[in-house]
Amino acid sequence: MEYCFGVDIGGTTVKIGLFRTDGELIDKWEIKTRTENKGEAILPDVADALKKKMEEKEIKASQLSGIGIGIPAPVDGDGVVQNTANLGWGYKEVRREMEELTGMKVAAGNDANVAALGEMWLGAGKGHKDLIMVTLGTGVGGGVIVNGQPLTGAHGAGGEIGHLCVNYEEEEHCGCGKQGCLEQYASATGIARLARKRLAADDTASVLRDKETIDAKAVFDALKEGDRLSEEIVEEFGRYLGYAMANLAAVTDPSVIVIGGGVSKAGSILLGYIEKYFAEKVFFANKETKFVLAKLGNDAGICGAARLIL
Amino acid sequence: MEYCFGVDIGGTTVKIGLFRTDGELIDKWEIKTRTENKGEAILPDVADALKKKMEEKEIKASQLSGIGIGIPAPVDGDGVVQNTANLGWGYKEVRREMEELTGMKVAAGNDANVAALGEMWLGAGKGHKDLIMVTLGTGVGGGVIVNGQPLTGAHGAGGEIGHLCVNYEEEEHCGCGKQGCLEQYASATGIARLARKRLAADDTASVLRDKETIDAKAVFDALKEGDRLSEEIVEEFGRYLGYAMANLAAVTDPSVIVIGGGVSKAGSILLGYIEKYFAEKVFFANKETKFVLAKLGNDAGICGAARLIL
Repeated sequence: MEYCFGVDIGGTTVKIGLFRTDGELIDKWEIKTRTENKGEAILPDVADALKKKMEEKEIKASQLSGIGIGIPAPVDGDGVVQNTANLGWGYKEVRREMEELTGMKVAAGNDANVAALGEMWLGAGKGHKDLIMVTLGTGVGGGVIVNGQPLTGAHGAGGEIGHLCVNYEEEEHCGCGKQGCLEQYASATGIARLARKRLAADDTASVLRDKETIDAKAVFDALKEGDRLSEEIVEEFGRYLGYAMANLAAVTDPSVIVIGGGVSKAGSILLGYIEKYFAEKVFFANKETKFVLAKLGNDAGICGAARLIL
Repeated sequence: MEYCFGVDIGGTTVKIGLFRTDGELIDKWEIKTRTENKGEAILPDVADALKKKMEEKEIKASQLSGIGIGIPAPVDGDGVVQNTANLGWGYKEVRREMEELTGMKVAAGNDANVAALGEMWLGAGKGHKDLIMVTLGTGVGGGVIVNGQPLTGAHGAGGEIGHLCVNYEEEEHCGCGKQGCLEQYASATGIARLARKRLAADDTASVLRDKETIDAKAVFDALKEGDRLSEEIVEEFGRYLGYAMANLAAVTDPSVIVIGGGVSKAGSILLGYIEKYFAEKVFFANKETKFVLAKLGNDAGICGAARLIL
């Protein structure tokens, strides 16, 4: 087999990549995610897009290993989702439906697990078989790779790192309904929340006080300018995330932890604040675990999806 | 293949089981663990014991799938240990050495992971592919099974559940050097520690005050007699363990959590105190996760070791 497709289904667009099976990305493009009518057009739209690309590139079905698909929801080992609100789906047998639509072999997985697989195959985790990827975006997503395979779990909900409870004293609620989730401290939204709370606590001077919008980028920009109060905020972020990663490492024993998502655009300055607190709480057997920044950006999803089928 | 051996190497004895490959335990026995001279006799002693048993039962090598071995230390995917103080071993290629000694196929794994595999195969986790086993003994051991396979990790240290930090305010140290490890609250030793602290805190009446020795058994016995102070202690134990299991479930998404070890002899009363706090902090996708008591007792190790080779 020479080729495979990686499909990353999101709430607004579907990203698609055509890969050689050695990992070379030959072509990538996007189509709109039509979520209306319970998202019934999404998979047929993807199937059409793949068929047209095969005609355009003169690729036959016999040259394709198949299609890997990443989905923003828990996906079980049979490629079934129970409910994917942001795509309009209820119960859906994604693998079976897509195999019927295309006649090709299909594999499906959770988008965060799939992104982790992508970084392992072609990105910051190359050469590793046991890794964790943490995606610091609007929320905190997680993917755990064990011996080269995504940790799917009994309900397809493995690697929900964002909902580890890291503070049993927290009074505000996470979007999931719980209190004290990692996502409340380490996501872009969480960092902005920490900043607002810190600013309200006293009158300490900070360049953040002159900003119209306090978001994660503003905090990291201020940190790089030497703003002391911003450093306090980033220390707090690093403590929650570093401690959580030390606990995660005791369970899954990764050789590398990949940090991705919008917040990771702050760059390598970020890693120091995580590593410092990780080192404080790490179990001795995991002390060699390295932290690295993700490399593939938005392509991690299509890369990992493609890897899923190989 | 009709048969296989399961070998569970401990610091004082080696337990050995001869199994049919369908799971029937045909014979089990123990030999002494000779740890002197850096434990150099341990593997040859095991090899001799297996050879004698094969002669006794008139079993030929061609009828054997091989030998699985559980070891009280991190074991990597190649069956190598770095240092096993309680056996006298330094770096040791267990799989290779045992294959050379016996001419048979060998697999090796960490004893806690192997016990979890045993409960999955023949015990309380039968029919499950994703499970966690927590062994509440002198320490807290853990084994995580993902899609039917033990989570080994990059350094063979996967599933070190006892060293999850569950209390960042703790001032006393765990045996591992860290502070606030689950083991400090949920092991037999940890429960005794909680009891001593609670008794010292004030003068509340308790039948525990008349005991010469305050250990985990005394606490659970008192609980069953309706002792209020003992109930407070068990609530605290349940809170730490239940909360930790909720975090673990968010990462590995098991369908069942098996509770074993000496403390689990308290019986099913134990589970209620764990489930109550688990339910408080569980992520919605994991709320169907069940708790059960281990069934195999000391045989979990030989059963799981045998399963390792199948």
